[in-house]
Amino acid sequence: MPYKDKGHLEIEDRGAVLVVRVDGGPHQLFGLDIAHQLDKLVNRVDRDPSIRAVVFTGAHPERFVSHAAVRWLQEEGAASPTVGRRGAAAVVRMAKHVDRSRLLGPVMRRTPMRGALQLERLHTTFLRMNASGVLFVAALNGSALGLGAEFAWACDLRVMADGDFFIGQPEILLGIIPGGGGTQRLTRLIGTHRSLAAILEGKPFTPAEALANGAVDKVVPQDKVVAQAVELAEHFGRRSKGSVAAAKRSVYFGGSMSLEDGLHVERAEFFTRVMSKDGQELMLDYMKTTDATGELPLYDPDTYAQALASGSVPGHRSTKTTRR
Amino acid sequence: MPYKDKGHLEIEDRGAVLVVRVDGGPHQLFGLDIAHQLDKLVNRVDRDPSIRAVVFTGAHPERFVSHAAVRWLQEEGAASPTVGRRGAAAVVRMAKHVDRSRLLGPVMRRTPMRGALQLERLHTTFLRMNASGVLFVAALNGSALGLGAEFAWACDLRVMADGDFFIGQPEILLGIIPGGGGTQRLTRLIGTHRSLAAILEGKPFTPAEALANGAVDKVVPQDKVVAQAVELAEHFGRRSKGSVAAAKRSVYFGGSMSLEDGLHVERAEFFTRVMSKDGQELMLDYMKTTDATGELPLYDPDTYAQALASGSVPGHRSTKTTRR
Amino acid sequence: MPYKDKGHLEIEDRGAVLVVRVDGGPHQLFGLDIAHQLDKLVNRVDRDPSIRAVVFTGAHPERFVSHAAVRWLQEEGAASPTVGRRGAAAVVRMAKHVDRSRLLGPVMRRTPMRGALQLERLHTTFLRMNASGVLFVAALNGSALGLGAEFAWACDLRVMADGDFFIGQPEILLGIIPGGGGTQRLTRLIGTHRSLAAILEGKPFTPAEALANGAVDKVVPQDKVVAQAVELAEHFGRRSKGSVAAAKRSVYFGGSMSLEDGLHVERAEFFTRVMSKDGQELMLDYMKTTDATGELPLYDPDTYAQALASGSVPGHRSTKTTRR
Repeated sequence: MPYKDKGHLEIEDRGAVLVVRVDGGPHQLFGLDIAHQLDKLVNRVDRDPSIRAVVFTGAHPERFVSHAAVRWLQEEGAASPTVGRRGAAAVVRMAKHVDRSRLLGPVMRRTPMRGALQLERLHTTFLRMNASGVLFVAALNGSALGLGAEFAWACDLRVMADGDFFIGQPEILLGIIPGGGGTQRLTRLIGTHRSLAAILEGKPFTPAEALANGAVDKVVPQDKVVAQAVELAEHFGRRSKGSVAAAKRSVYFGGSMSLEDGLHVERAEFFTRVMSKDGQELMLDYMKTTDATGELPLYDPDTYAQALASGSVPGHRSTKTTRR
Repeated sequence: MPYKDKGHLEIEDRGAVLVVRVDGGPHQLFGLDIAHQLDKLVNRVDRDPSIRAVVFTGAHPERFVSHAAVRWLQEEGAASPTVGRRGAAAVVRMAKHVDRSRLLGPVMRRTPMRGALQLERLHTTFLRMNASGVLFVAALNGSALGLGAEFAWACDLRVMADGDFFIGQPEILLGIIPGGGGTQRLTRLIGTHRSLAAILEGKPFTPAEALANGAVDKVVPQDKVVAQAVELAEHFGRRSKGSVAAAKRSVYFGGSMSLEDGLHVERAEFFTRVMSKDGQELMLDYMKTTDATGELPLYDPDTYAQALASGSVPGHRSTKTTRR
Repeated sequence: MPYKDKGHLEIEDRGAVLVVRVDGGPHQLFGLDIAHQLDKLVNRVDRDPSIRAVVFTGAHPERFVSHAAVRWLQEEGAASPTVGRRGAAAVVRMAKHVDRSRLLGPVMRRTPMRGALQLERLHTTFLRMNASGVLFVAALNGSALGLGAEFAWACDLRVMADGDFFIGQPEILLGIIPGGGGTQRLTRLIGTHRSLAAILEGKPFTPAEALANGAVDKVVPQDKVVAQAVELAEHFGRRSKGSVAAAKRSVYFGGSMSLEDGLHVERAEFFTRVMSKDGQELMLDYMKTTDATGELPLYDPDTYAQALASGSVPGHRSTKTTRR
């Protein structure tokens, strides 16, 4: 019987912030159902101007996401005759260009192409998270291995529970390697060498190690993880959604290119923002306040503190509510 | 009345090192005048074999550069109807290829293209600093936000005043993002994740934070900042100008490419140096000294210490003066 | 008389691990002979499934490798009229595409092309080390400058002797720059800015500095360096050779590309592994053990510890010997 799973995402609406509990069944596995629901969720929140941040946490008492549903990976690999590296590259390349709606139909079931398409779709979902004006926060209520860790690396910020938990990439101990972006995002998060050594050994980080090397941003007691993640989500979520998207794209995509190409990405994103309604209003306000007070607002410590708290420099028309 | 500014650069000649004071008026802003003068300066020092290093500092008692002249940015953004990201990318792309001398003429004033051209020219200036055999040192006598920080990231070394100062990218609090290279150079300076978090929050670093994360190289009392920067400028400026240029290009440009492309850049730069008069003389001297003393000069601690101090391994013909 | 050297590699077979002593003559120099023997060795161990790791150490009592044979570099540079950067780039580009077997023949001797070809071949050797399923460990029994350091950066792990030793790139003090990959691999190992500053100054790292900035992985007493390196080689060498190769290629090559291109590399490597005999067997075992025990093996602490020690998750058929 081919692989089936019953995972799902429980979505709790807290206004500008959604809290999403990943329920991967008794073993807390990340399988195809969760991948599909995550893709839908990311598309929805990206387009909804009222949603500013999403916090992901695990429904399991001690785990964020255990790892991928191994049967999912194994069956897709087994469905294909062993091919060399060149062949695999060709399969993946093809998968990028085929018409997915047709290929994912019943005719395509049980072919080696199907696994490549499913993986390519998950990569697209993670890349859309990186490109989005929504801030994604992983609230690691417990351990995360393999695809669980990769899901956390695809978020923008990570809060982890203190205790006997771990996060990392054990794939090499199963004769495979990370396939959900781990070799790329962990490398860009903690540096080439630390990433290589961890992936080659297959040993995960403790919360303290992950904090020290930058793999997570905060370590707090387990019962504070979600609250702390929501606080970060609200704080960062107060910034202009368009600017968050532009900054994320510039750093994640431009920052991984050659310096000249990266600067080109930044200039394009910058122009969009300078021409935007948000940007124009805030810059005009800034100049008005400068003229009225005789000082640049960002050089007034109270004003800067208010700006950090509210997400935008308070304008001259001080009766306005917090800008979103 | 369109944006005008009166900023200028005061240049003090100290032989191989220039000390340049950035005067951005009472608000210490970086505007179009400073951008033009900086471009001229960089071109001049790059071509002058006697100039080995430039130290930049702020003419303001407490600020290096406050940030960009906001009116400059705002007016250029306002001059154009809001366009999507795709449109902005097209504008920037066009700006790279047009004949600037014609477009910067009076006909082009007040068009959206003008802002793109001005920004592109500033990016070119900063890139020329990265490619130059001149060593640029930012003597941060005080705070630097936005374009002030980006100007510092475009330098090769940074010395910052201790005290109640800050350096960083607050653009998101004005509904925009960094546009002078900040999303790219800060990312390559302190790592993807720390850069992303700082740019998304808009919170600057204290001197201690900047020192800890590598955003600045030294923190010293404010009255020692220029002297310390000049000392670094003199020390690094004693190395062969051609080798400094080759090393900077290999690391800044090659180091941001794929490993294979980066190695190609290094090989090309290396060959130029191995064939150079400087390189040939120093290598011949090195071999002569090895034969005469029976030991490799770099494995003699005194010789190595002298080489670091003078900028080149002292040759067998020891009566020669310090090599420049 | 043109440059000649007599360096050689002494190879000690310890089963899955080879210990290779680099003998660079009385000055412990890395010259053309060593480059040729290294190339042969890397090709051999890459293809031999029984060899899992190679430890390199210096035959000299106090040095790993002093640096390149300077005469080698100097003579090749001198053989050519000084050409500009553009010319050098063209020479290097050509060298990538010419038929080496013909060009390395006697007709080509004493031409500027020969040096470019020799260097290109050494770069290819180092890149093959990065792409290989063999783990390379530098056992730095003493100092390493220039090409000696670059050889160590081309390895996967580095153990260095404590004491009055140093490792780094002094080339700028000879009017040249690193040419064996140092500007690229050190940059990716310790970050752009620390790499730039070290290469521009020409000052090497002490063992403590190298450990702190990640340039080496461990610092131990000199008489423990080889034993410690062999221990690491055995530990990492127990992982699946195909997975080690796939992980190294994904991180070294993919990790230096744009995020999207890097993810493409990972997906291709991942598919090859998921389809492999190794991967399939270990995943099937993993599922069987999960069904039999009711728990995911990696969430049983003893099982995970065994997996790290043996290199693969112990299977349900527990009578099997350690998987290689």
